[in-house]
Amino acid sequence: MKFIKTPKKFYFHYPFIAAVIGTKTGDKVNLMSAAWHTQLSFEPPLYGVSISPKRYTYDLLKKSKVFSVNFLDFEYIETVAYVGGVSGKDVDKISAFEIPVINGRILDVPVLQEAYAVYECQLAEEVETGDHTLFIGKILGVHYNEKAFSGDKFCPNTEKISPILYIGNEYYMTVDSESKKHYPRKLAQEYIKDWKGEI
Amino acid sequence: MKFIKTPKKFYFHYPFIAAVIGTKTGDKVNLMSAAWHTQLSFEPPLYGVSISPKRYTYDLLKKSKVFSVNFLDFEYIETVAYVGGVSGKDVDKISAFEIPVINGRILDVPVLQEAYAVYECQLAEEVETGDHTLFIGKILGVHYNEKAFSGDKFCPNTEKISPILYIGNEYYMTVDSESKKHYPRKLAQEYIKDWKGEI
Repeated sequence: MKFIKTPKKFYFHYPFIAAVIGTKTGDKVNLMSAAWHTQLSFEPPLYGVSISPKRYTYDLLKKSKVFSVNFLDFEYIETVAYVGGVSGKDVDKISAFEIPVINGRILDVPVLQEAYAVYECQLAEEVETGDHTLFIGKILGVHYNEKAFSGDKFCPNTEKISPILYIGNEYYMTVDSESKKHYPRKLAQEYIKDWKGEI
Repeated sequence: MKFIKTPKKFYFHYPFIAAVIGTKTGDKVNLMSAAWHTQLSFEPPLYGVSISPKRYTYDLLKKSKVFSVNFLDFEYIETVAYVGGVSGKDVDKISAFEIPVINGRILDVPVLQEAYAVYECQLAEEVETGDHTLFIGKILGVHYNEKAFSGDKFCPNTEKISPILYIGNEYYMTVDSESKKHYPRKLAQEYIKDWKGEI
């Protein structure tokens, strides 16, 4: 193992799933692709997206206080990559890339029709973290492709959908659905019982 | 597309890369697996991990104020899954699962020798977000397998390593390295130029 003190840019922790963040202020709809995002709470359901102040979405989000988080199949990789390649300051991406969008059911946010899952989020908190701001949204509604999810926790069914993963440096990939393995907690618990000599 | 108001538990946004969070207080070393984590800033380099107060790591982290974030190859899926299957309150996971650990170079944190990349993090901020707390760490050093990363941004080379993705419900998978596609920004920019009739 090599060791370095913190490098300038680094993506050791990639791949991250690529999401498309949608904002709308008045008639102005904008989309950006984002890799820095995560769930933050079940109850209330909170989702965080880290955005640089350099991004156009940052300005729009500050005004609108609502946003959508859209997840697309690898089939639509071009949409996600193209949206990430130009700024909404320079062009109306929806028109230019002919992206089908409807309005949110609960909030005034763009919902991508090509997406297999979309969160409608109301801004709950902003946390400044270094050169980015973490926008924390409360999820008020979810649009989803019924065939793409299973169980009561709505886990993606990767035989039906291929999530888009961002690996850095403008490279994208998807999952190997055949690699899927089940490791129930029970296995670990039984191992420990055995190890402790209780069996 | 179906629509629901926020469900109780939901993983529409999975897969997320699985990380192993390491903490140490005195002689007590503990590991937990985590899916809710993301980069938050380049300068300073900040990394956030969302942890429930129910977790043993939560208590340890509150005391130690330092932690490690470890990324392992799919080859070590058992380590990651097992670590996620039992609590450090009940068992010393390092001993039970015979996990090779060395000490951090900069901080007093466990560094997994099986990992292909490890961040040494100093707690910079805690943000309470619903039923979890986001622990934001400043990365003070990175251990990494030289062969596994390329370029000055240290992007994972998925021909050399297979990151572990968590897809929910105790299922894990990895990437399809053959699916990798390059979408340079230039492509989108040229498309827009064309669309605007500038060519």
